[in-house]
Amino acid sequence: MIVILKQNPNRDQLESLVNWLQEKGITIHSSVGEAHTILGLVGDTSKLDIDLISALDIVEDVKRVQEPYKNANRKFHPEDTVIQVGNTQIGGGTLTIMAGPCSVESEEQVVAIAKAVKASGATMLRGGAFKPRTSPYSFQGLGATGLEYLKIARQETGLPIVTELMDLSQLPLFKDVDVIQIGARNMQNFDLLKAVGHQDKPVMIKRGMSATYEEWLMSAEYVMAGGNENVILCERGIRTFESYTRNTLDLAAIPVMKKLTHLPIIIDPSHATGKNWLVEPLAMGAVATGCDGLQIEVHNDPAHALCDGPQSLKPEQFDPLSKKLLKLHETMKGLEG
Amino acid sequence: MIVILKQNPNRDQLESLVNWLQEKGITIHSSVGEAHTILGLVGDTSKLDIDLISALDIVEDVKRVQEPYKNANRKFHPEDTVIQVGNTQIGGGTLTIMAGPCSVESEEQVVAIAKAVKASGATMLRGGAFKPRTSPYSFQGLGATGLEYLKIARQETGLPIVTELMDLSQLPLFKDVDVIQIGARNMQNFDLLKAVGHQDKPVMIKRGMSATYEEWLMSAEYVMAGGNENVILCERGIRTFESYTRNTLDLAAIPVMKKLTHLPIIIDPSHATGKNWLVEPLAMGAVATGCDGLQIEVHNDPAHALCDGPQSLKPEQFDPLSKKLLKLHETMKGLEG
Amino acid sequence: MIVILKQNPNRDQLESLVNWLQEKGITIHSSVGEAHTILGLVGDTSKLDIDLISALDIVEDVKRVQEPYKNANRKFHPEDTVIQVGNTQIGGGTLTIMAGPCSVESEEQVVAIAKAVKASGATMLRGGAFKPRTSPYSFQGLGATGLEYLKIARQETGLPIVTELMDLSQLPLFKDVDVIQIGARNMQNFDLLKAVGHQDKPVMIKRGMSATYEEWLMSAEYVMAGGNENVILCERGIRTFESYTRNTLDLAAIPVMKKLTHLPIIIDPSHATGKNWLVEPLAMGAVATGCDGLQIEVHNDPAHALCDGPQSLKPEQFDPLSKKLLKLHETMKGLEG
Amino acid sequence: MIVILKQNPNRDQLESLVNWLQEKGITIHSSVGEAHTILGLVGDTSKLDIDLISALDIVEDVKRVQEPYKNANRKFHPEDTVIQVGNTQIGGGTLTIMAGPCSVESEEQVVAIAKAVKASGATMLRGGAFKPRTSPYSFQGLGATGLEYLKIARQETGLPIVTELMDLSQLPLFKDVDVIQIGARNMQNFDLLKAVGHQDKPVMIKRGMSATYEEWLMSAEYVMAGGNENVILCERGIRTFESYTRNTLDLAAIPVMKKLTHLPIIIDPSHATGKNWLVEPLAMGAVATGCDGLQIEVHNDPAHALCDGPQSLKPEQFDPLSKKLLKLHETMKGLEG
Repeated sequence: MIVILKQNPNRDQLESLVNWLQEKGITIHSSVGEAHTILGLVGDTSKLDIDLISALDIVEDVKRVQEPYKNANRKFHPEDTVIQVGNTQIGGGTLTIMAGPCSVESEEQVVAIAKAVKASGATMLRGGAFKPRTSPYSFQGLGATGLEYLKIARQETGLPIVTELMDLSQLPLFKDVDVIQIGARNMQNFDLLKAVGHQDKPVMIKRGMSATYEEWLMSAEYVMAGGNENVILCERGIRTFESYTRNTLDLAAIPVMKKLTHLPIIIDPSHATGKNWLVEPLAMGAVATGCDGLQIEVHNDPAHALCDGPQSLKPEQFDPLSKKLLKLHETMKGLEG
Repeated sequence: MIVILKQNPNRDQLESLVNWLQEKGITIHSSVGEAHTILGLVGDTSKLDIDLISALDIVEDVKRVQEPYKNANRKFHPEDTVIQVGNTQIGGGTLTIMAGPCSVESEEQVVAIAKAVKASGATMLRGGAFKPRTSPYSFQGLGATGLEYLKIARQETGLPIVTELMDLSQLPLFKDVDVIQIGARNMQNFDLLKAVGHQDKPVMIKRGMSATYEEWLMSAEYVMAGGNENVILCERGIRTFESYTRNTLDLAAIPVMKKLTHLPIIIDPSHATGKNWLVEPLAMGAVATGCDGLQIEVHNDPAHALCDGPQSLKPEQFDPLSKKLLKLHETMKGLEG
Repeated sequence: MIVILKQNPNRDQLESLVNWLQEKGITIHSSVGEAHTILGLVGDTSKLDIDLISALDIVEDVKRVQEPYKNANRKFHPEDTVIQVGNTQIGGGTLTIMAGPCSVESEEQVVAIAKAVKASGATMLRGGAFKPRTSPYSFQGLGATGLEYLKIARQETGLPIVTELMDLSQLPLFKDVDVIQIGARNMQNFDLLKAVGHQDKPVMIKRGMSATYEEWLMSAEYVMAGGNENVILCERGIRTFESYTRNTLDLAAIPVMKKLTHLPIIIDPSHATGKNWLVEPLAMGAVATGCDGLQIEVHNDPAHALCDGPQSLKPEQFDPLSKKLLKLHETMKGLEG
Repeated sequence: MIVILKQNPNRDQLESLVNWLQEKGITIHSSVGEAHTILGLVGDTSKLDIDLISALDIVEDVKRVQEPYKNANRKFHPEDTVIQVGNTQIGGGTLTIMAGPCSVESEEQVVAIAKAVKASGATMLRGGAFKPRTSPYSFQGLGATGLEYLKIARQETGLPIVTELMDLSQLPLFKDVDVIQIGARNMQNFDLLKAVGHQDKPVMIKRGMSATYEEWLMSAEYVMAGGNENVILCERGIRTFESYTRNTLDLAAIPVMKKLTHLPIIIDPSHATGKNWLVEPLAMGAVATGCDGLQIEVHNDPAHALCDGPQSLKPEQFDPLSKKLLKLHETMKGLEG
């Protein structure tokens, strides 16, 4: 951490800062320039509160050199994290394909879709029982009943299930779920993050719509600080000025996360763009960029059911896509070798 | 609502859409052009799910004409909402000044600050007991004890208190609070919004860092749909590419909210900018733009305590600012007259 | 185009609007609802100035249905545009690889790099002679001399050259260039766009840092309206809140442009991210997403020369990347078939 | 400037960097930590090219401490710049009100508006002769003829004129203009900036839609580096995710610019929002925040003429606004005293 002092800093305040830092085991190197004095802080600065130091009258600016996350940091954990989920794994060179409907609507629907996506190569079933909706007048999901239908679909297909937890009061219902998803809007619901950090199901954290890489990793850090190391990241588009697509899918997040952290990263092209004709090209792009998996919305009858977003693929559209994704993943492995 | 159809839409699907809309009491006017057929939907479209219609194969685009919020909409509630809080009110031509520390640290601290800000003209005491922090290693607030200290400060000064609720499990502790604050990161924590909609304390909703005006109003609508009409909006800066300030304070939100809704709007220049030297000019600007009040961070000893953000003012800085704000508010009233 | 009128519009103004539209050959369908009257405008609305109509007192909002660009619009020109440049072509199923230094520094440098990138599979040489720099104190490029060096490199290798034109006064110097590049900062330099529309060299338009898809296509339309149909689009990252990378590369631009326009699209991962270790994964992602080509910075000695950005690859890094890109492009063709 | 080195940097490269810096008169302080070595560079770093240093293999990151602009920097020029324009001045405690039509349409129009706005208190006449339009099919302005009409209006009213220069080839026509405006889209048209830096008319630089404060000041630096110290800044809204308003007006730019630079700052609420009902509240807010002036669009007959944007005020709307602005400015002076 680097602390840039204002010109002619008050000596008492400077001494008090230096003492406080030294008590915390930080060594200080100072460079005195004409315009500025710069303090280089050496030691474990990850637990120093940058805001506290910035608040001081004598400080002009503080810049981090070391990342504020530890458990999620690849520097301290160089090997990729691989997460076992049912009979499949996430990370470690496999391509995870999570497919299924945005909302669970009925047992028949979710079982039919689960069978279809399994046949096409999906390795996990996604589906929402508790649904975050911007309008209080929109369908809010089937809740606990939806979770039951998902479990039936799992029983019928063997596909592990991933579904969203919206509030910590729902946590007891999620005991039998395979992966708990934290939605983009809850990425900084810190009480929820702490709660899933104190249980042992894998947790997939979707990136908030305006979350920086560092904030996203700090949310992973919240879960890991509670003792749960099985964290998966999911990029689902960030909010930008461009409104033609719902959000802007940031595929640079893949190699950036590969560098900064050891956690696996999944891409959700369906929610990112909100348009089903963009799912295929961006899913292909994501695989070639090096993601560990994809989350794709599949619905068996969008037009008649009037119950799903325009980003869903039909099973007959998902099938060739899934096969292309797997072939591309094989090709990519060959190119690496 | 306007539905733009693709060229040569499938006749069966079109008929099915038309029947479905008519069942919901919607009248349809169609304009057939060379390239596009356009359906104008007339009636109460606020409860139609725009995503459901967009999902249809025959639909190219759907555009709203009517706003999706009802209770919060000024069109259906033309008079300003005025909210009584203790012996003060929010809205209705008064200038509410909520001042106090970011975090409650001790009884002495919060009582001292409460007395100081009251003497300077503040009408409410703000202070955080439960603190949303991006790092799990940062101070998370005093919790229930912090709430007790706030109540003591209220008893000593008569200032009503506003403080943040982070999770619905904490709600029982907030029974004796005057205004419940929903933080920017929880603006779309829909379970939390529903919970505060089913109790009767006024609720202040901070705008999410990347929330549109409509999304913000839909969050107010969540609370109001539960029966709680006492909602206050608070603009605290949006996330943009500019990183010199923490966020970009959007003062246009004031007149826009005055047009779209009848709810009062408060401005928080402290969190918006993250720099205490920007609080005064932007607070003055906010008053001249027409806000109903301000939320300003005041701390009695930022430098020594190392416990508050660089956006806090000291009581001796807050005092002249508060007086200027009240004078400016008087001048503005004179200019309107 | 859809015009939404305010409630109880002034009859004279409405009549005057209707007459004005009819004179322009527009047919009008009106839907009268309780809250709003909606006018559906049918006919060629691409030359109607949306701002003029929005300015009317009686108009609440105007929404476009038809795109405001014509020459660039795939609806009116369904086949892909393929542009012949020297002995290579851009578009039409080929993968164009434009490689070379950010700035031309010397004849030796640019010839050496040109030979290296050609050997690795590049099909065009890129290099800047006139350099847009944010600081007036930074190196501004070799200018006309730099153009001469590029031409020598072309002579030595046969690679066509693409280089940036910054001001229309420089146009005479560009007579012998193969493709004229318009930089992101000049995307809405309309006088420059008109100038290159009135000459016959192909023009590559980089997307402005905060340009929407529609604005980008309108810039292409400026060039095409002048008579020059040989326009290439180049996505190079948009400005967002994320500052870890220089910009956010928007790969959705590839399929979106493929749908909206017939013009070829090139991706520049070097400028988008500003980090050379992100070039490979994003270049691979771009090819799998379906781009027509890439623009990649290659420099022969970044460390010693102190003369190029941290986004440059060395020739020995570019060589395996170029080969992977070509193999991936072949695989993608196979998957399409 | 602070240079953060990678772990175990190559010794030869480090030595070569150190020598290169020392040759440029820079003194180096190094702090060797466990994870990183940090070099503190002391001396005049404003002319060091940050990209050159970042490009080195041994460098992990470079952070500026000193601003990269010199002539525009308040640190080196503490007094406010005051610019004399005709019989009025910009900066120095006056409130400049630039009013007039977006486009000059006829002599009658611009003379009538000039007379009206002068009577209401405007101190300068604005009007566009060369118009940057996103569509090649929109009205592009009257060009040289428009400039003549502006001069006639100046003669009739005594109001100095400010008008936009779009390309350096038009510069000879601007000899008799009072203030040359550089539009937001040309903020980084560096050849244009250089050209206006080599002549002596005051130059007003509009902030680019996605320009940071630093980039904006670097554009001012371009003009000042050419010898022209008479630069005015104009904030006109930045591009964000919010699309209800055309752009987001950033009033924090006022106090930030007051801190970073000595140049005057003008606010344009008309273009920022694109809605005429937002002009008054934001203009009032801008004055209370401390701006040096406003640029406001006024048109005498928007509805009939079909020739101006929805952001224009009529003279009868501008008149009371202008008077309120001047009263508020007086009040603000009183509050400062």
